[in-house]
Order: sequence, then structure tokens, then C-alpha cells
Amino acid sequence: MSNEALRVDGDRLWARLEALGEIGAVHGPNGERGSARLALTDEDRDGRNLVMSWMHDLGLSVVMDAVGNVVATRAGTNAGAAPVVVGSHIDTVRTGGRFDGNLGVLAGLEVLETLEQHDVATLHPISVAFFTNEEGARFQPDMLGSLVYVGGMAVEDALDVRAADDGARLGDELTRIGYAGSQPCPVAAAPHVAVELHVEQGPVLEDEGITIGAVTGVQGISWTELTITGQSAHAGTTPMRLRRDPGYVAAAIVTGVRAIAVEMGGTQVSTVGRCEFHPNLVNVVPSTVTMTVDLRNTDEGLLQQAEAVFAALCEHLELEEGVTIERRTLARFEPVEFDAAMVDLVEATARRLGHSTRRMPSGAGHDAQMLARVCPTSMVFVPSVNGLSHNIAEYTTPADVTAGADVLLQVVLAAAGALWPVA
Amino acid sequence: MSNEALRVDGDRLWARLEALGEIGAVHGPNGERGSARLALTDEDRDGRNLVMSWMHDLGLSVVMDAVGNVVATRAGTNAGAAPVVVGSHIDTVRTGGRFDGNLGVLAGLEVLETLEQHDVATLHPISVAFFTNEEGARFQPDMLGSLVYVGGMAVEDALDVRAADDGARLGDELTRIGYAGSQPCPVAAAPHVAVELHVEQGPVLEDEGITIGAVTGVQGISWTELTITGQSAHAGTTPMRLRRDPGYVAAAIVTGVRAIAVEMGGTQVSTVGRCEFHPNLVNVVPSTVTMTVDLRNTDEGLLQQAEAVFAALCEHLELEEGVTIERRTLARFEPVEFDAAMVDLVEATARRLGHSTRRMPSGAGHDAQMLARVCPTSMVFVPSVNGLSHNIAEYTTPADVTAGADVLLQVVLAAAGALWPVA
Repeated sequence: MSNEALRVDGDRLWARLEALGEIGAVHGPNGERGSARLALTDEDRDGRNLVMSWMHDLGLSVVMDAVGNVVATRAGTNAGAAPVVVGSHIDTVRTGGRFDGNLGVLAGLEVLETLEQHDVATLHPISVAFFTNEEGARFQPDMLGSLVYVGGMAVEDALDVRAADDGARLGDELTRIGYAGSQPCPVAAAPHVAVELHVEQGPVLEDEGITIGAVTGVQGISWTELTITGQSAHAGTTPMRLRRDPGYVAAAIVTGVRAIAVEMGGTQVSTVGRCEFHPNLVNVVPSTVTMTVDLRNTDEGLLQQAEAVFAALCEHLELEEGVTIERRTLARFEPVEFDAAMVDLVEATARRLGHSTRRMPSGAGHDAQMLARVCPTSMVFVPSVNGLSHNIAEYTTPADVTAGADVLLQVVLAAAGALWPVA
Repeated sequence: MSNEALRVDGDRLWARLEALGEIGAVHGPNGERGSARLALTDEDRDGRNLVMSWMHDLGLSVVMDAVGNVVATRAGTNAGAAPVVVGSHIDTVRTGGRFDGNLGVLAGLEVLETLEQHDVATLHPISVAFFTNEEGARFQPDMLGSLVYVGGMAVEDALDVRAADDGARLGDELTRIGYAGSQPCPVAAAPHVAVELHVEQGPVLEDEGITIGAVTGVQGISWTELTITGQSAHAGTTPMRLRRDPGYVAAAIVTGVRAIAVEMGGTQVSTVGRCEFHPNLVNVVPSTVTMTVDLRNTDEGLLQQAEAVFAALCEHLELEEGVTIERRTLARFEPVEFDAAMVDLVEATARRLGHSTRRMPSGAGHDAQMLARVCPTSMVFVPSVNGLSHNIAEYTTPADVTAGADVLLQVVLAAAGALWPVA
């Protein structure tokens, strides 16, 4: 069999997804099957142990670094070559799905098992990594493990991070679950290239009937928390002209940031996900409203333009309604652009395998964007049913899982310099 | 001294307001002094006991009825005449002010003490009442005591009402605090007339620099709870065109009902006081939003018009955004119109005493609107500083308290048929 004809064993991959998903399993009333493995909890430890056992079963060389990233490597024939890194994460949000992150790690193992089974050697080593605390659901920032891996955060600072839920220190939790590794972090030498398979977590591929997304980059993110202070007042006794209603201002901001995204078009999106009225009583004009605004764009200049229009809207509303608006930046990341040749490789590979494909940005953050700081990187997206993710109803069909893993296999083979089977 | 020249003792009234306010006292960080005496709690009992002791000190005939309303009567010279009722309440919201309700009751006592002091006899008896559970903060409905008093609710049903906080039965709580009276309820004979002095609880009088409001009626109230269901989605990965965002719909309703009130003008007001996003996370388009809409107007036809525009807005938004909106009526009261002659009497009296005055509707509900079902009724409003009420910062100046009590005294004298002092 030629290397170009190699395919993964979809059933074997699916079985591993099922087995890992059972650790911290969460079952919904309508048959949903999700997982809860918050970073560095007992459930995360159990999930790590299972994946580590598979890595050892495959005869890989497994190392654990100082922030708990685990990297399993299949050697290449060129002893000095840098590895092709296939990585993602296996921690989940509090009620997460079974595909987010897990797919990228387990498809990586499936790629290596397929190569092993067919005696395919590669010039470059191939590493499958799972990175610590990608979700950020327990420790901030998210993508912490891969950030430290590429030298974007000092390991000492990472170990001192405290959990949002119980205040536990990240370093102590690593030790507690047996994942405080001895390998230095950041990694000494940059990978050759990196590629991450992931579920889209959005509805675009499904909506357009496309199987494979060739991910061009990650949107820049601007998160702002607003505290709007007006004047609490009786709903019955206060004429409209005498109101200073922060609820009205919040509503005008919600509709205003929707208009910003719709008018700018392109990749610009805007979301108000949090909104809290105080005192939140039917017959009282609120005294304060706290809310968040999430703006994203793949272009830094356009994202700044959206931020400027949003700021002007706030200033206008302060004057119009006589309220004060405090703005606090919760997060700000510039857009990440993936390596053009790697994106081309993903797209061409998907097409060669007969899959429908489109180029697209990622709206969510991923470990790959950290690896992109140190080596040529891209991602492969497969469809999420109903666009759902971070939800126990998250689902990707077996056919799409297999398609994504096949694309990953062929991209890795091309990047790693595949040799013909020697047998 | 002619009866027309009689005035209350403002210091004596103020001292009683202070003494009653100390029961269940709540102090704020900026010198605010409020009270917490939820209906039929130990604090309410202590407040009742204090007011009862004052009633007895004044030699009044005190009766307690089956729902705990307390009525203290000074006899008239015409044995068969119906009483002039001066009533309000002394229960408070959870963190209430010291004037709401209390002022009407204690000013009533001050009127009777002034008449006593000056040996003024009246043809009609004069009763000072405090009604049970006006606020509705612990038991629903609000204005329960006065509603039962006028026969609008069966006493057995009222006694079976359960507390929102601890589920206690109203009848059991009355017994527990010693206020399950023996007087039948509803009252056997209608009062001659009724008048209630109350703080405005809104900003209109202060804003216009007016001391006395002659209250023409109570606004009709329409409360709706909305549950808006859309599709939870990832803030980064979901294009704007694929969103079904209940937060956007909620915002469009907030701005829409503001527009209804502004465009209709007159007494129409609209308020969104409650609004809750689920799951309320910065990077998740909400799945559902629960909110309330409070519409009020003094005219039933106009209130129905506002309700119709609001309903059409909801139906339009359901189609536009692809969400569902469940609407549930929480409360619906038709407007109450006070007796024209009683309103004229309040206005003319205020003017005769040299106070600035205006006719105005009440935006809030009051015991007087229940009494209006059985006898000619009006109310006297005095200014609330900054329009605040249901708030420990609620305040009315001593000068305005005295002015309101003087108007109450002179209205009562006119209505009760005052005789010259016999001395």
C-alpha cells in the first residue's frame, strides 16, 4: 500500500473517544453523553492515566514536563530532526463534551498506531501532546500548558496560579495528582511543525455541508466588563424623563454591539453573554447593571475599529441617560495567523482525500495558536452537530471524526517526510 | 383658636417616626437610617405593640380584626355616624424606609392628639388604622389587610396565604405574634370617607418644587414575565447570521417598551426591572433570558393600548430572531380613580394652608385604593428626597412631614364635621 492510501482505523479511534469520555461521564436527560474533567482534578488525573497507558502500549517515549504537559514521541529516522507535534488537550469545562480537545489527542495516537501497524517510518519524529489546562475553566489563563510550553509564561508563575473554584495552587494540584514532571519547560527546541485536529465548536461547516475546515488562524479577542451605574427608582412613581436607567443603557449596548458586527460584516462577531441587573426586582428601575461584551475579528485593525465604535457608543449613552459606565478589560488577544504553507497543506490534503473543504478562521482559542509562536502551524476542523460545544450535547459523527483523522494522518505524513514501508 | 388655624405638633410626630423607625432599624454606611419590619415577623409585632401603646395612651377605642388590621377610634358626637378613616400600614420591605406607610399612621395619631389637646369635637368618629401586609414583601398579594377589610378577599383565604420566605401560614403568624383579632372582617359598615397621607415614593414633587400632591387615583398595573428561549452558542465560532440570541431579543424588548412609554407620553411608564441571562457566561450566547415588563397608566384604555403594542413587539421579535417567547401575567390591576370631591378637598386645603400643590396620580399601590371601593377616598402626598423609597435612604424633610400632617388634619376636620371647641 502506498503511503498516500493509508487510512486510520475509525472504529479504534471512536472506541478510545468513548472510553476516555466515560471518565467523569455526565449523562443528560435526552441521551446526551458528556464529560466533566476540570484541569488537575481527580477526574483529569484518571483521564491522563488512561491516555498515558495507551501511549505506553504503543511503545512511545513519554515525557512529562514541569507544568504537566505530556508528550509521547515516535522516533524518526533522522536522529537530529525536530518533531512534528500533534497536540491538543483532554481537560474539559464543567459540563463539557467528549470531542473538544480529546479528538486531537486521540486522533494523534491513532495516527501513530496506523503508522506502526503499517511499518511506516518518517524522517522526523512525531509527538502527540496533551497540554495542561487548555479550557481555563479551573485555572486562568486558558491554554496555560501550551503557553508555558512555548515560553510565553514563566513556569514559576504558572505553578503559582490559583484555582477559581477552591483556590488550590496549580503546582500543588500537579503534585497531588502525580503530574509534576521533571522535563524542563519551555521546550528546549522548537517543533518542526504543528497541527491540531479539533471540532469546529461552531455551526459553519454543518450549515454549509462541508466536512473539513482548513483553519487560517484564530480570531483576535476583546473582552470588556461594564458596570453601569444609574439611579434605582420606583417603577410606578418615576416619570420616564427623570430616569437614569442602567438597564436601558445595557439594552442599548446589546443592540448596539449587534449592529457593529452586522454592519462591519466579514469575520466580526459580537456577543453579550453576561448581564446582571441589581436589585433585579420587577417594580424597581435597577441601580446597576454588570455585563460583558465579547468582540472578535481575524484582523487586528478591524478589531480595533470595532472597539472604537463600541467605546464611542458607551460614551454617548453615558451622556444621554446620565449614567456612569466603568469599563474593564477582561482579556485582549491579537489575531493569530497560521502558516500559509501549512494551511495550504491541510486544504490540499482534504481535497485529495475527496472531502469538501473550506478555509476558515477559528473563533475559539486553541493550543495550536501557542505553538504557532514557535513553528509553522495549522489546524484541521471537523463539523460540530448543531454547532454545539462546551455542552454535554456536543457531537461529531463517526464519519466526520474518521475524515478528520485521515486528513491529520496525511498532513503528518507529508510534514514528517514519510518513507516507504521497508518490509 | 379657630379650627381652621389648628396645626399639628411636627416635633411630636417626628419623634414618633424616629421611635417606630428604631424597631428593626437598619443603618447604612452613609448615615442612612431605615427599617426592616416584614409583615408578621417579630419586628412587625414590636412595631405594632409600640403603635398600640400610643393608641391606648390617647384613650382611643382600639379593635383588632381577624386579619390583624388594627383600628383606633376617637368617638364623634353623632353616635350613628360612620367614621372618617385615616389609614396606612407599618410593615416594611426587607430594607425599607421609615416614612413609607408609617407616616400615614403616625400622622393620623398626631391629628387625633391635636384634636384632643385642643378639645375639638367632630360629628363623625375618626379612626386611625394600620392594615396588615401592605407591602406584599412577605405575603402575596400586597395590600392584603385593606383588601380583606373592604370585602375584596375572603378572610379564610387570607389566613391560608403562605409566606414567600419561610412558607409560614399567615393565620398562624398572626396568632404567633398575638394579632389574630376577634373583630369580624370585612368591616360591617363602610367608612364615611377615607384619606391617607403617604410619601410620594417618586421624584415628581421634589423635581417641581411642590410640597403637597393631591392624589387623583392609582395607576393601572400590568406585569408580565417573559421567558425567551433561543440557542446557546459559542461567542467566537457562531456567525451573526446563524444566531438565535435571546439576549438580543431581551434588549430589543427593553428599548422597545421604553419607546412605547416615551411615544405614548401622559402617565404611561414602562420598566424592565428583572433580567437574567442563562448560562450567563462571557463567551456564550445565552440559551434563555427571563425578564419582566411593568407597564402602568392611569387610563385603562391607554394601558390596554400599551399592552397591545408590547405584545406585537414580542411576536415580531420571535419571528425576526427565531426564538420563542413565553409570556405570563404576574399581576394586572385596573386604574383606580379617587373621589373628585375628596381630591378637590385635599387640593383646596393645601392651597388654603399656603402650600404649593399639584394633582397627580399615584404610581404605586396603596391601602387607600382598597378603601376607595367602599367610600369616597383620596390621598395626600409629600415629597421623597431624590424620589427614593423601598430603600434605607428614603427621606422626607421634617418641614414636609409637618405640612402633610397639617393638610391631613384640616381635611379630616372638614370631612368629619368639626365643631368649635366647647370649652
